[in-house]
Amino acid sequence: MRTQVVIIGGGPSGLLLGQLLDGIGVEAIVLERKTRDYVLSRIRAGVLERGTVGLLAQAGVDARLKEQGIPHDGTLIANGNDSFRVDFTEHTGTTVMVYGQTEVTRDLYDAREAAGAQTLFNVENVVISDADTDTPSVSFEQDGTNHTITCDYIVGCDGFHGVSRKSIPEDKRREFEKIYPFGWLGILSETPPVDDELIYANSERGFALCSMRNANLSRYYVQCSMADHVDNWSDEDFWTELKRRLPEDVADKLVTGPSIEKSIAPLRSFVTEPMRWGQLFLCGDAAHIVPPTGAKGLNTAASDVHYLFEGMKAWYANQDADGLDRYSERALDRVWKAERFSWWFSSLMHRFPDQTDFDLRMQRSELEFLRTNKAAQKAFAENYVGLPY
Amino acid sequence: MRTQVVIIGGGPSGLLLGQLLDGIGVEAIVLERKTRDYVLSRIRAGVLERGTVGLLAQAGVDARLKEQGIPHDGTLIANGNDSFRVDFTEHTGTTVMVYGQTEVTRDLYDAREAAGAQTLFNVENVVISDADTDTPSVSFEQDGTNHTITCDYIVGCDGFHGVSRKSIPEDKRREFEKIYPFGWLGILSETPPVDDELIYANSERGFALCSMRNANLSRYYVQCSMADHVDNWSDEDFWTELKRRLPEDVADKLVTGPSIEKSIAPLRSFVTEPMRWGQLFLCGDAAHIVPPTGAKGLNTAASDVHYLFEGMKAWYANQDADGLDRYSERALDRVWKAERFSWWFSSLMHRFPDQTDFDLRMQRSELEFLRTNKAAQKAFAENYVGLPY
Repeated sequence: MRTQVVIIGGGPSGLLLGQLLDGIGVEAIVLERKTRDYVLSRIRAGVLERGTVGLLAQAGVDARLKEQGIPHDGTLIANGNDSFRVDFTEHTGTTVMVYGQTEVTRDLYDAREAAGAQTLFNVENVVISDADTDTPSVSFEQDGTNHTITCDYIVGCDGFHGVSRKSIPEDKRREFEKIYPFGWLGILSETPPVDDELIYANSERGFALCSMRNANLSRYYVQCSMADHVDNWSDEDFWTELKRRLPEDVADKLVTGPSIEKSIAPLRSFVTEPMRWGQLFLCGDAAHIVPPTGAKGLNTAASDVHYLFEGMKAWYANQDADGLDRYSERALDRVWKAERFSWWFSSLMHRFPDQTDFDLRMQRSELEFLRTNKAAQKAFAENYVGLPY
Repeated sequence: MRTQVVIIGGGPSGLLLGQLLDGIGVEAIVLERKTRDYVLSRIRAGVLERGTVGLLAQAGVDARLKEQGIPHDGTLIANGNDSFRVDFTEHTGTTVMVYGQTEVTRDLYDAREAAGAQTLFNVENVVISDADTDTPSVSFEQDGTNHTITCDYIVGCDGFHGVSRKSIPEDKRREFEKIYPFGWLGILSETPPVDDELIYANSERGFALCSMRNANLSRYYVQCSMADHVDNWSDEDFWTELKRRLPEDVADKLVTGPSIEKSIAPLRSFVTEPMRWGQLFLCGDAAHIVPPTGAKGLNTAASDVHYLFEGMKAWYANQDADGLDRYSERALDRVWKAERFSWWFSSLMHRFPDQTDFDLRMQRSELEFLRTNKAAQKAFAENYVGLPY
């Protein structure tokens, strides 16, 4: 087999890139390790930056997003019993869109099918060969049969544990990592969200987040120990703990109900440099991870897709290699800013095991500065809605 | 002896409060442990916030400041070989004033003498008594003779090591502290400053600061180990190290010369709460210390003086106790913001022994965000010129 671009990983960034390439007549084959149903069962983030929304529109997959997405023009930040709001529209003239990553992925699969673009599922034992030559290829096994695809470019959209990053020789990459000493226990429940907007809460008992997917689907999180286990948490335990971490007026109006999903996720900051090796390009979680505070994961993957798509477009249209040559530099410039924001916002909102009384006062003072200073709010809002590409 | 207010400590905050009180006819006696010449030989900070300049004007001691002070409407921030400027005037409509703390102190002593206000020098063994009653007093020894002054109020302007804070029972105060794992090696030299503005430099070899007192008096610092000793540093060693930490174009124009002072200072963040106990009020370093990055020490002492003076003025004019009752709360609110800024700016600019590669990239990303984001620059500038009282 031969194609122009092999995309490893059928999550939202791989699918979005495939769809954008399809729109300019470049053939891409997407390889996915799991089934479509499996991918669509994963619970992920739900806040889209303006730039991500723009890319989905550019890819022609925003019909349902426009219909069902919920624009948010601010967010609430709570500190103990006090809270304040940062207004995105006031400070940036734009909003973010609440629309589940699962829905984005579903829309992309539907569009990909409608376009007749090729996605291979249940793909195992992927091996990237000759990525540092002009004749790269990807070999894999599907349903017991071995295949090899030769191509112009390989794009690794296969996440933190995928094969793509590991295919770059260790002496050709440099990794940066921070592991946070806690996790997020999250539940999904078919209850109306406690507020129209997200609530990020710093409390004496640890961080909590009130998020949502739609008018009758809520997503809530509480900071927990990574030594904890989801089986230790009944729904009632979760709701009780969540309420203790929210301002009283918020806790009083919280509607509880049975969880339909419950899980504990670790928090990690990670970046690998560079994001290109020969004809292999890394996108999204394959190259970088952010802690979920501030919802930069999917959005930063989308910004990679933007830079890579622009580079490929210029190459296939005019043999202009500049965009591809500068992909890693441009993508990383924005990645590091998103890493900084996610790290800073995580550091501001969580309780850390080794925090001193002074450290706690620095958190409180920073929250107080953010509450009272318009310039600090504007810097926050600009990061939250997404820095310009 | 009896007076209205006893001020312990003849540094700038005690003298400024004394001068302001003199201006409204309230009698204050200042007690100083050392001689006037000793106090005036201490080398201290040199950047005054707009609010500090305003207070000096209010106290009628700004004639020489207006003549000799150098307004700065921006500062340079360097990261390795790159640098950028934050414009204070653009973001805040105001400037800071470069004028040595030693000069401020001299002007205040001159004004105090001219006004015939009483300052006692060489005061030893100060004891604060009955501060939690309506009849507080201060006893001390001067030239071998014991004295006691009864008064309405006692103000502790006697610094971190002074007797005032320690006179508050331990169970009535709470302390917050952070010790930074490095110091500042500073020199004063009679050379023209390398630039019209201050340069704060983050380099691979550690922090450096180019500051000044006037057109022919420069103040330079390099981050050093607290285990280091000033005797290990010849002038030539210092200049060589400083140049290695500055952008090349700055290092090339540095004018060197013999040092006229050389010392190593520790960096500490410290706050005690509350700042009032009965009739005893704490001001400045007696209640809080900041690391020198960003020059908030004297300026935060001045903001304490502002709140305390307003409280005393209302009390002596109208027996309105509200300002005194709320002194601690109001002063601390601003103190914590200055503590946050000084901690953040110190954390951003120094090398720490336990920094990981990820931590170093967070510094770089934060500097890059500050370089490119106007809202972040505005928040920086608002802190630097001084948040409103």
